[in-house]
Amino acid sequence: MTVPQLTGVHPAWLPPEAFLAIGSRQVLVLGEGALVDTVREEVAAAQARHGGGRVGCVLALAGAEGLPEVARAVAAEAGSTGAEGYALARRDGVTVVVADAPAGLLYGLFHLVRLGEAAFAAGERPVERHAPAAARRMLDHWDNIAVHPVMGQVERGYAGGSLFWRDGELREDLTRVRAYARLLAAAGINAVAINNVNVHATEARLLTDRLGEVAAVAAELRPYGIRAHVSVSFASPVVLGGLPTADPLDEEVRRWWAAAAGRVYAAVPDFGGFVVKADSEGQPGPFAYGRSHADGAGVLAAALAPYGGVVHWRAFVYDHRQDWRDRSTDRARAACDHFAPLDGRFAQNVILQVKHGPMDFQPREPVSPVIAAMPATKLAVELQVTQEYTGQQRHVCYLAPMWSELLAFRPWGDGGRTVADVAAGGGGLVAVSNAGGDPYWTGHPLAQANLYAFGRLAWDPRLDPAAILDEWADLTFPGTAAGLRGTLHAIMDGSWRTYERYTAPLGVGFMVRPGHHYGPDVDGYEYTPWGTYHFADRDGVGVDRTRATGTGFTGQYPRPWADVYESLERCPDELLLFFHRVPYGHVLRGGSTVIQHIYDTHFAGVEEVSAMRAHWDKLDGSGLVDPAYHARVAELLAEQQRSAEEWRDQVNTYFFRKSGVPDAHGRRIH
Amino acid sequence: MTVPQLTGVHPAWLPPEAFLAIGSRQVLVLGEGALVDTVREEVAAAQARHGGGRVGCVLALAGAEGLPEVARAVAAEAGSTGAEGYALARRDGVTVVVADAPAGLLYGLFHLVRLGEAAFAAGERPVERHAPAAARRMLDHWDNIAVHPVMGQVERGYAGGSLFWRDGELREDLTRVRAYARLLAAAGINAVAINNVNVHATEARLLTDRLGEVAAVAAELRPYGIRAHVSVSFASPVVLGGLPTADPLDEEVRRWWAAAAGRVYAAVPDFGGFVVKADSEGQPGPFAYGRSHADGAGVLAAALAPYGGVVHWRAFVYDHRQDWRDRSTDRARAACDHFAPLDGRFAQNVILQVKHGPMDFQPREPVSPVIAAMPATKLAVELQVTQEYTGQQRHVCYLAPMWSELLAFRPWGDGGRTVADVAAGGGGLVAVSNAGGDPYWTGHPLAQANLYAFGRLAWDPRLDPAAILDEWADLTFPGTAAGLRGTLHAIMDGSWRTYERYTAPLGVGFMVRPGHHYGPDVDGYEYTPWGTYHFADRDGVGVDRTRATGTGFTGQYPRPWADVYESLERCPDELLLFFHRVPYGHVLRGGSTVIQHIYDTHFAGVEEVSAMRAHWDKLDGSGLVDPAYHARVAELLAEQQRSAEEWRDQVNTYFFRKSGVPDAHGRRIH
Repeated sequence: MTVPQLTGVHPAWLPPEAFLAIGSRQVLVLGEGALVDTVREEVAAAQARHGGGRVGCVLALAGAEGLPEVARAVAAEAGSTGAEGYALARRDGVTVVVADAPAGLLYGLFHLVRLGEAAFAAGERPVERHAPAAARRMLDHWDNIAVHPVMGQVERGYAGGSLFWRDGELREDLTRVRAYARLLAAAGINAVAINNVNVHATEARLLTDRLGEVAAVAAELRPYGIRAHVSVSFASPVVLGGLPTADPLDEEVRRWWAAAAGRVYAAVPDFGGFVVKADSEGQPGPFAYGRSHADGAGVLAAALAPYGGVVHWRAFVYDHRQDWRDRSTDRARAACDHFAPLDGRFAQNVILQVKHGPMDFQPREPVSPVIAAMPATKLAVELQVTQEYTGQQRHVCYLAPMWSELLAFRPWGDGGRTVADVAAGGGGLVAVSNAGGDPYWTGHPLAQANLYAFGRLAWDPRLDPAAILDEWADLTFPGTAAGLRGTLHAIMDGSWRTYERYTAPLGVGFMVRPGHHYGPDVDGYEYTPWGTYHFADRDGVGVDRTRATGTGFTGQYPRPWADVYESLERCPDELLLFFHRVPYGHVLRGGSTVIQHIYDTHFAGVEEVSAMRAHWDKLDGSGLVDPAYHARVAELLAEQQRSAEEWRDQVNTYFFRKSGVPDAHGRRIH
Repeated sequence: MTVPQLTGVHPAWLPPEAFLAIGSRQVLVLGEGALVDTVREEVAAAQARHGGGRVGCVLALAGAEGLPEVARAVAAEAGSTGAEGYALARRDGVTVVVADAPAGLLYGLFHLVRLGEAAFAAGERPVERHAPAAARRMLDHWDNIAVHPVMGQVERGYAGGSLFWRDGELREDLTRVRAYARLLAAAGINAVAINNVNVHATEARLLTDRLGEVAAVAAELRPYGIRAHVSVSFASPVVLGGLPTADPLDEEVRRWWAAAAGRVYAAVPDFGGFVVKADSEGQPGPFAYGRSHADGAGVLAAALAPYGGVVHWRAFVYDHRQDWRDRSTDRARAACDHFAPLDGRFAQNVILQVKHGPMDFQPREPVSPVIAAMPATKLAVELQVTQEYTGQQRHVCYLAPMWSELLAFRPWGDGGRTVADVAAGGGGLVAVSNAGGDPYWTGHPLAQANLYAFGRLAWDPRLDPAAILDEWADLTFPGTAAGLRGTLHAIMDGSWRTYERYTAPLGVGFMVRPGHHYGPDVDGYEYTPWGTYHFADRDGVGVDRTRATGTGFTGQYPRPWADVYESLERCPDELLLFFHRVPYGHVLRGGSTVIQHIYDTHFAGVEEVSAMRAHWDKLDGSGLVDPAYHARVAELLAEQQRSAEEWRDQVNTYFFRKSGVPDAHGRRIH
């Protein structure tokens, strides 16, 4: 293993200068194991650059031979750190990281990198224990091998091509995959599903003749403690195996999956498992055979169990051929209706992967009721780092505040567990990656912060989004972060709420252009089979999802939320139109009418984007950011402003044409 | 030359049985020339099948040697028949067709085929002279060579692949192209542009290294009197020639085009000319060099003039990047604004090709004002046989009534010339073909009638659409046409108006799904850059194009139409929303309110489709049509019904949501 070096690619949050503090110390690395070797390599590389030699530091496995006294004492005080945890202390002028296991040591190293000089500050540092909230912190790549005629190389990818494949072939040089793994490990990620959940013909073959590609990618991920997972087609026994059926209860099908898993583990001994999107948006699944999703997941789980692998089974199942005229069907209900009755019937190594909201990654949704409805099932909560519905990495939209809010949500009310608790006790967090072959990794350079923040929140959901932003900025802009912080906070802290303001109002969602989902089209999905409607007419807008008069979706929540959402008076403003249909004159808890709120937020959202641009423009020539970086962000902010104005004008005009209510402030509505 | 034989392809209006009458006669064909040879071949093939031998018939060039006395007498009485005309008579028990030129004889033969036994009915038949209204009757193919990633092999094609190319290569077997030419000749067509007006990189090369493909296609068209034309890129001197400019006034550019034309005529001596879409929807044009379209067309015209070729220069020029917020720009005005000032400045061999309406082939538009605005320019009127906006050959929509209506329109009012007169005196009629590799040629089998009718109306615009339908049915269904006529008229005669009823109301247009243009999306283009808006709000709908308060488009018409369209009282109902913005309660000349008219027509349209299906269903098992033909039409009618209901429900719901006005008859609006 050598520490990957790239040219022509932005270093994101691991520029060489981020290793200045540790690289300028004498460091003792103790212990055995591949990941300990990675730590050794990282330290050596940093020292080679920065000189090493100053007062020292120990990074050691607690059980390593020759452990110095200071480290032994820290280890004893820390007790067990678990499979990935570590303890950190400073005493007697030595900074000590100890861990029970190699992975913990690697995460401890990156903790030191984050701390920088602070890790070596004069004085003692009491023992701190760090361990991840959940055992699995995962990114899903929606990468295709063969370029899809509509969706391209990466479905919903806004950062260039795939890091793994190009034009139907594995990339020859995988150095960048290793550099990606390093970035992810520094953020706390330990699992990556390498291909799209929509598994097309070529990608299905990753289980068979293209298995070598999985092994090659896994080999690049492994030195940074990341296991490879693969999305598979439920129809594989038919498509790949030539069987007449993929019925999960068929004995031949079971044997086929068992053999397939055996082959995969022979090639990739630390393989993570399968990801499955079944009976969803046209993907095959167990419904075709009259079997339940527990049965469907079960056959895969049984195949993986001997090797310790897991099945990530997605709960994103709904009728995507709905009739818009049928108001009794409610897509929001679908996941809970399908899966809650199966609680307790999934195998132990199945993780039910639930999108955070009941619809599909909108900028504002309530928390999915599935999260509270399946206490006897391992759940993972799925987020979307790729900005499909939040500006597609052309808009600045720092998502950590949204994620933080939903992770802290308590489905059973005050005193109950949080969403983060459910995830931590189950399958942890999963997110769709926003990274690709783009020189800045993520299209918009500032979108790197979303990838970093996802990893950090998966490790510790209680972290403060603003503090994560500081961490990210300190690492990304070594030397100038102090001067940049104010600007970055001004631009990014509120950017999700800004995006929310200038797009679809009050939680109603989906006013996007069909297909690509960029930019506004208020009626774009209104008369389609996709189940995403707002029902705006001349009198009002919103979806009645109450038990009393609507689809009954509110009844999928436990109390108190079932009652809060049911109540027109108590429902939070930002979700009002998700749960209720109201007249334009309805007065929000915030005091404004719905129609005036729409106008006000859309005007305000654009003004906030203008302010973001002004902040960024002030950096021009400041020397605080690289000119090319500055120019790219400036160009994207200009597009964000154009797009925000388009959103403002379309949404305001649409609702003015419908409602006939003029803006109270007489601003221009076209 | 041999008469083309195809298997597995429907014979359309030239089944062998259509030649029964002539094939069972003794026929004397006299004259010299390739097209006379074609006549000879056709007659021989028909006789071989049907026995020949009965009382005779003479088909002769008027100047042929050995002309029998009866033919000489007819020729003398007929006088000159022109380049493509012919005279027909029956006397002394002999049916005589005489023509000055071979093409006339070919058209005369097909006239005999149309007449069938009637051509040989007992008794005398006085001399009739037939000649086409216009010298050029042309079909444009929007066929691509290389399959376009979005538009496919044929742009806006709904009848399978291209007749000429497949997957980037000329088809090896071009027999079907010859059979196509034969069908077209039988309908009166004499020119075909073989490739898409949107000229992409591969297709541009038809002027250079792919010129052989033009020659190969031309060789198949030639025996039936059809000349090949090619769509070219205005940027060819740059793209193909490597010149630094395509400026039409640049001397090197002139030389390049002259040389290109020389090469084309060396390969295809009877080549027809170039078709150009310039400065339109992203195609290059003279605007880039600050030159006028007269200059642009001029450089091509000069290159073609020595060989007798023509330039079809499309007048479809507008701003497709309009801001929907800008209500002062009106796409309807664009063609006239651009071209009327250039009247008289085009070269003699330039034909300005004008779409029949000011927008883009909607089911209902006013006649383009350009047609009356350029008396000193040769104009061709462009129609769309391919049903981009009229059901995409999944809906029955017999277009001859629409074309007939517009051809009979008198832009200068009663007593003035008709649109057909303008076309006949200029460039004739041009239409986008609806034919492709489909076994029925046109996707929907009944859409063959549109292709046939276009040719017949291009030959004689005064023909009655119902009579053309009879002709087509008699040829297409030999033996059973009498039994089918009633059903076909019931289904087809009113099908265009039915389509109009269940789609966009009162001439407002463009309520289609963006991109593919199939099915409804009332707001689909409302907030886009395409210039196609309806401006519906809670109070009313329509575009104010008056001089008094609107865009002034009505002023592009001469009187009386400028005044008629300007007047809310006098404007025809079916165009009301094209010219005026009105409240939903506005009372139409027909007596209904606008909103009630919308509801009524949409309910009625669907009922009419149900009636069409019922008529067709009654044919099942009747033996009057081939079962496979019947099944295909039945399946398509089911889709038409589904689609019509979707149109009805979306449009009615949209306007009910906006207007709040309930249906006076209490029918269900979702």
